[in-house]
Amino acid sequence: MNAETILDNQEIEVTIYSPKEIKKIPYSDYVAESRPFAPTVTWINVDGISDHDRVESILEPFGIHPMIVEDVLVVGQRPKIESYDEYAYIMLKMIYYADEELVFEQLSILFDLETVITIGERNGDVFDGIRKRLENEDSNLRKGRSDHLVYAIVDSIIDAYFDVLEVLGEQIEESEEELLEHPNIALLTTLRQYKRDLLFLHRAIWPLREVISRMLSDQPKEIHKETIPYLRDVYDHVYQSIDTIETYRELLAGMMDLYLSGNSNRMNEIMKVLTIISTIFIPLTFIAGVYGMNFKYMPEIPWIYGYPFALILMSLIAVAMIVYFKRKKWF
Amino acid sequence: MNAETILDNQEIEVTIYSPKEIKKIPYSDYVAESRPFAPTVTWINVDGISDHDRVESILEPFGIHPMIVEDVLVVGQRPKIESYDEYAYIMLKMIYYADEELVFEQLSILFDLETVITIGERNGDVFDGIRKRLENEDSNLRKGRSDHLVYAIVDSIIDAYFDVLEVLGEQIEESEEELLEHPNIALLTTLRQYKRDLLFLHRAIWPLREVISRMLSDQPKEIHKETIPYLRDVYDHVYQSIDTIETYRELLAGMMDLYLSGNSNRMNEIMKVLTIISTIFIPLTFIAGVYGMNFKYMPEIPWIYGYPFALILMSLIAVAMIVYFKRKKWF
Amino acid sequence: MNAETILDNQEIEVTIYSPKEIKKIPYSDYVAESRPFAPTVTWINVDGISDHDRVESILEPFGIHPMIVEDVLVVGQRPKIESYDEYAYIMLKMIYYADEELVFEQLSILFDLETVITIGERNGDVFDGIRKRLENEDSNLRKGRSDHLVYAIVDSIIDAYFDVLEVLGEQIEESEEELLEHPNIALLTTLRQYKRDLLFLHRAIWPLREVISRMLSDQPKEIHKETIPYLRDVYDHVYQSIDTIETYRELLAGMMDLYLSGNSNRMNEIMKVLTIISTIFIPLTFIAGVYGMNFKYMPEIPWIYGYPFALILMSLIAVAMIVYFKRKKWF
Amino acid sequence: MNAETILDNQEIEVTIYSPKEIKKIPYSDYVAESRPFAPTVTWINVDGISDHDRVESILEPFGIHPMIVEDVLVVGQRPKIESYDEYAYIMLKMIYYADEELVFEQLSILFDLETVITIGERNGDVFDGIRKRLENEDSNLRKGRSDHLVYAIVDSIIDAYFDVLEVLGEQIEESEEELLEHPNIALLTTLRQYKRDLLFLHRAIWPLREVISRMLSDQPKEIHKETIPYLRDVYDHVYQSIDTIETYRELLAGMMDLYLSGNSNRMNEIMKVLTIISTIFIPLTFIAGVYGMNFKYMPEIPWIYGYPFALILMSLIAVAMIVYFKRKKWF
Amino acid sequence: MNAETILDNQEIEVTIYSPKEIKKIPYSDYVAESRPFAPTVTWINVDGISDHDRVESILEPFGIHPMIVEDVLVVGQRPKIESYDEYAYIMLKMIYYADEELVFEQLSILFDLETVITIGERNGDVFDGIRKRLENEDSNLRKGRSDHLVYAIVDSIIDAYFDVLEVLGEQIEESEEELLEHPNIALLTTLRQYKRDLLFLHRAIWPLREVISRMLSDQPKEIHKETIPYLRDVYDHVYQSIDTIETYRELLAGMMDLYLSGNSNRMNEIMKVLTIISTIFIPLTFIAGVYGMNFKYMPEIPWIYGYPFALILMSLIAVAMIVYFKRKKWF
Repeated sequence: MNAETILDNQEIEVTIYSPKEIKKIPYSDYVAESRPFAPTVTWINVDGISDHDRVESILEPFGIHPMIVEDVLVVGQRPKIESYDEYAYIMLKMIYYADEELVFEQLSILFDLETVITIGERNGDVFDGIRKRLENEDSNLRKGRSDHLVYAIVDSIIDAYFDVLEVLGEQIEESEEELLEHPNIALLTTLRQYKRDLLFLHRAIWPLREVISRMLSDQPKEIHKETIPYLRDVYDHVYQSIDTIETYRELLAGMMDLYLSGNSNRMNEIMKVLTIISTIFIPLTFIAGVYGMNFKYMPEIPWIYGYPFALILMSLIAVAMIVYFKRKKWF
Repeated sequence: MNAETILDNQEIEVTIYSPKEIKKIPYSDYVAESRPFAPTVTWINVDGISDHDRVESILEPFGIHPMIVEDVLVVGQRPKIESYDEYAYIMLKMIYYADEELVFEQLSILFDLETVITIGERNGDVFDGIRKRLENEDSNLRKGRSDHLVYAIVDSIIDAYFDVLEVLGEQIEESEEELLEHPNIALLTTLRQYKRDLLFLHRAIWPLREVISRMLSDQPKEIHKETIPYLRDVYDHVYQSIDTIETYRELLAGMMDLYLSGNSNRMNEIMKVLTIISTIFIPLTFIAGVYGMNFKYMPEIPWIYGYPFALILMSLIAVAMIVYFKRKKWF
Repeated sequence: MNAETILDNQEIEVTIYSPKEIKKIPYSDYVAESRPFAPTVTWINVDGISDHDRVESILEPFGIHPMIVEDVLVVGQRPKIESYDEYAYIMLKMIYYADEELVFEQLSILFDLETVITIGERNGDVFDGIRKRLENEDSNLRKGRSDHLVYAIVDSIIDAYFDVLEVLGEQIEESEEELLEHPNIALLTTLRQYKRDLLFLHRAIWPLREVISRMLSDQPKEIHKETIPYLRDVYDHVYQSIDTIETYRELLAGMMDLYLSGNSNRMNEIMKVLTIISTIFIPLTFIAGVYGMNFKYMPEIPWIYGYPFALILMSLIAVAMIVYFKRKKWF
Repeated sequence: MNAETILDNQEIEVTIYSPKEIKKIPYSDYVAESRPFAPTVTWINVDGISDHDRVESILEPFGIHPMIVEDVLVVGQRPKIESYDEYAYIMLKMIYYADEELVFEQLSILFDLETVITIGERNGDVFDGIRKRLENEDSNLRKGRSDHLVYAIVDSIIDAYFDVLEVLGEQIEESEEELLEHPNIALLTTLRQYKRDLLFLHRAIWPLREVISRMLSDQPKEIHKETIPYLRDVYDHVYQSIDTIETYRELLAGMMDLYLSGNSNRMNEIMKVLTIISTIFIPLTFIAGVYGMNFKYMPEIPWIYGYPFALILMSLIAVAMIVYFKRKKWF
Repeated sequence: MNAETILDNQEIEVTIYSPKEIKKIPYSDYVAESRPFAPTVTWINVDGISDHDRVESILEPFGIHPMIVEDVLVVGQRPKIESYDEYAYIMLKMIYYADEELVFEQLSILFDLETVITIGERNGDVFDGIRKRLENEDSNLRKGRSDHLVYAIVDSIIDAYFDVLEVLGEQIEESEEELLEHPNIALLTTLRQYKRDLLFLHRAIWPLREVISRMLSDQPKEIHKETIPYLRDVYDHVYQSIDTIETYRELLAGMMDLYLSGNSNRMNEIMKVLTIISTIFIPLTFIAGVYGMNFKYMPEIPWIYGYPFALILMSLIAVAMIVYFKRKKWF
């Protein structure tokens, strides 16, 4: 066993199970040895597609169409389902937070009646619940056939959408509180980031509607009748997550409008108060200017009450303006 | 009979009725005793789903699919209808005001030809009219079968939407009057709250269209032919409430635009008047400044009419500006 | 014959006609007497639905489903068509101006092969043309069967939409001219009112599309083949009026945008001119301020040309600024 | 032959043609004489519908349904197609520039296997190309049957749309250049006029999609199989012109946004510069004011360097503010 | 061989290939000589359509419908597919960058079971990959029939869309960084240009959806069953590129909003600071004005501490205003 095989063991996870037995074996053994017991389902889970040759070599024994192999290897594609004579192919997006970053990972599922191959773009997945349930002899999953495992995988992925949406929902709510209490320009950038995340989430989830609806209407032979109610449930969940995304988008749009109008409102208020201050002092300054003129013959100048008269005049004008502005509800 | 059973009596309401008889019994008795008379319909109404085991134990004797039991127990789902061999399942949102707060409560309806089980998220419902009509021997409801009770429940829920919409409509109208008379920033927050309520109402009611349309087109065997005209009516009501929501949304959008443009208009008017005041006094202050200069040789200074000349000059300039601005309709 | 019956005569209009004869009788006689001749069609036109019992008593002999009776009695519903074994039911909105107010009146039409019952929400209708044509022995209407009368009623109602739209169109055009010549804030309120009217018109007319399209596709047995081309024409008219509403809405939106941008433009122009005036005088005032300082040693003060020098300096600065602003096309 | 007949000759154009012969005759002769040769197609082109009786008398011999005759006579309708047992009816909008004004003329086409009647709202059409091709013995049109003439008419009309769109497109492009070089308020009015034209064009062309698609799917018996590829081509052209209209609308919307934001930007720049000028001089004026105070004991006043000190202080402050504003990139 | 033929050789590229052999011959020879070997496919690639007669002469031997020949010759059309008895016709847009300019070139593909003719609007295409793969004896393309070549051509064109979109995506990303770091008015013009490019890209790619979907559903006989999975893949790619365009459009719209609101925000901040400076100095100037008045009896004037008193008063007022504004968070 050389270094390459060790790498294999890290990257490729082979689980063989029947209602009675379950065994995890290294991928190298999977190919080499005869099957350890009569299994119901073999699940081959591959993490990473950068080594194209390896992925091709894994898929080769199953006679996968070269077009599909290409789809598996190229990232950035649209979720879809395709069924062929020998197997069915589902591609969707696994979305989760890794180190506070939203990760969009493309996952290909290839399955026939006995084998399920899942190929992800990189390390990390949302299948821990499935692994646990597989260990449990009483779980429906363990008792089920390959289509039940496929359902469980798709369901885990969509459940992960809800986790992501819940986190986003909480963040949006926090932002809203902050918006109402301390509106600031940084918030706008945050809101834009959420908007962007929702845009990408929408783009990843929206085509799933069609994928699952086609699974329900075409019913490829790999899908048994008992799995249908489960798939219907998955369908509802997809719709629900799309609904939630739409609601968040509308809330976000409302928040951005609120921020902008609140901001412009606040700015206007400030400008108004500043302008009112100026407007009160400018006429007063004018009067001071008048009595600052140097004309030789100005009756008020030598007048003993000239100064208090001027001061009182100014005060009266100031008060009059304040009263006028107040009455007009200008401040 | 212990404390737990008493709690049962509060939470679970069992009504058994035929055209001739009606009886309300505690849930514990429902299970234990033999049926008190030949009933047409048994209605089990459960309030609260926090005790998962209990809900599961209630549903167990009816052989409900585990997927559906899960749906019943998890809140925040989309309205839907599903029909199975043995029973049909409807989920919708009960919306009502409790303590001036809009409550969205998820309600699951499970029914076959003899039994209707309704499971709500929490205490409180909109079924008082149904309870009254059940007491009345002459009511169609009392004479009808289980599908008529289901219709009555769905109809009560949709009627409750109209009650909610009517309250909202009145509030929006009041806000509009206030908007035209005393526009203020608090109003904007109120309008946003209404917008939000309408968004959630829309989200809760919109999928009902499909639910009821599917009841009409698939006609599960639990729905008898006589119930169809009633369901059609319910369908019209759903559409009507969606129409009303849309109309309110457009009205609200119009009001917000009006507020914002009115607000900016008012602010502009204030700024204009303030600026006009400043603009009139600044040239006058300049003239005062000129005659405040200390040059030794200024012909106007020793002139006996210098002061009145300056004052008249200023007045003329002020009047000229006012006339000019008035003519240009600037104020 | 007592007071109540007289009231009947006012509210309920019964017209019985055949190609050869036509007779208007009081409703009390309609029920009591045997038919005066072999009629083709009996038209019972009821104005007002506030007296529920009376309306119910009118509909009772025709075996109308209680759900429909309720629909007839409750206002604020959506236009619709429903056909039953014995009769068909159409509900639509009659829209007309009464005392310069736009009136939306709900009209129910119930008809079988021999009788047409129309029940309006209040006094006033748009059927005068029909009454005249019924008097004319040569009219197609007089020769036709009940479905032709129904067509004539629906057609009158939709023709009335065009009358309303024409009035609105003229008002919008007038507003546009006023907008271009004397934009004012009152206009904005008028435009909003039109927008609102169009919103309600749209809401009332939009579902009619479906109503008439269903009449054409389902062809209930009450509708004879010869009436189809007429209904198609009605269908075109409905689409045309929806088109017109859409066009008006876009024109209105354009006008409101124009008003708002024109308004803000005008305000900006005013503020700019005011600010330019201030900006020219502020440096001049500064210079006057400089020569108003009381320093003992200021060379310009005792200088015999100091005053003209200062005045010329100020003029030069003012001219320079004006030239600069002009060149930059600032005013 | 009296004056009326002469008027006929002007208004009504009758062309009878077969692959071998073509003849234009006055309408009065058309009715009177026996056919001059065995024609393939007779085309009766009527300009003007104000004389209702005349139009009715022209259509009478063809047994046109009164509903259609009404449609022909009433302008302002929606494009549509209707096929009857004996003939088919197409209504569409002819759009062209006459004296730099956009003209929307309603054109009705009635045709059976031998005759095509076209009735336009007023003088002027876009059929000169057809007239020329009819003269040419080798043209497909001359060899074709009535459906080919109908195709040629519809095609001419849609080609005329492209001419109109091309003119509009050039005007929009010119406006865009002007917008980038000399933005001015008059341009906004021009853009609005284009927007309006596009709105009416859209309204006139949009329903044609359906008209032609129905011609293709229903294939009334008047349309021969060989004409189908031509109609498909027409269908593509309609879609293309709708696409072009949409593109122009989006371009226009972008231009208006650009104008408004550019305008507000320019205004803001002006206000900023003006305000910066004021802001620099106001503190300077304050300092001049301070040294203009008349206090008996002010140390700077009798100081021999007081005046230069004050001037230098002012210059320093002015320079400091300018440097500060420059650094902040405020101008 | 004369000059014209040389021009032919430049413009028209004829490739004849079978799994075993491949040969490129001049077009003049193609017509003249007998086929050099039993080919699978003949590909005639024509660059340039300005010489209408020549194009017509190329298409003539294949019996192409005159309507299609016209389509080939007229640019600015909508992508489409049409299948006839003898051949199928696809028209789409080739989009690529030439000299940093986005080029939209119309490409017509005519094909039957043995021949593929591609006619482009001008020199330059995106088929270099195809030419290389044709040289390779092991490629599926070389082994395939005419439909595989058509697939390869369509696929190359759509792959070229992704190249264009990738370039645009990078440019948009760069613009976004610039927007966040150095927002400037030139950026707005750039963003508008991208918006415009995306509009035209959308218009060119959107109808392809329908084209390929019709190829999949109608399955003209020229398309063999083995080509279907490839076409499905092409279909996915089209959808993906439309998705990408939509995402870019939303991103761009967000960026423009950000720029505008950021710009107005920045402008407001500047105006606020400027106004605050003025507002602080105006009351101070007023006080200086007061003590600049020339009244004979002013108690402060002869007072020995008058001057420092005034200065301290001014400082206090200035400080008070600054503190007040700071507390209100106005700057």
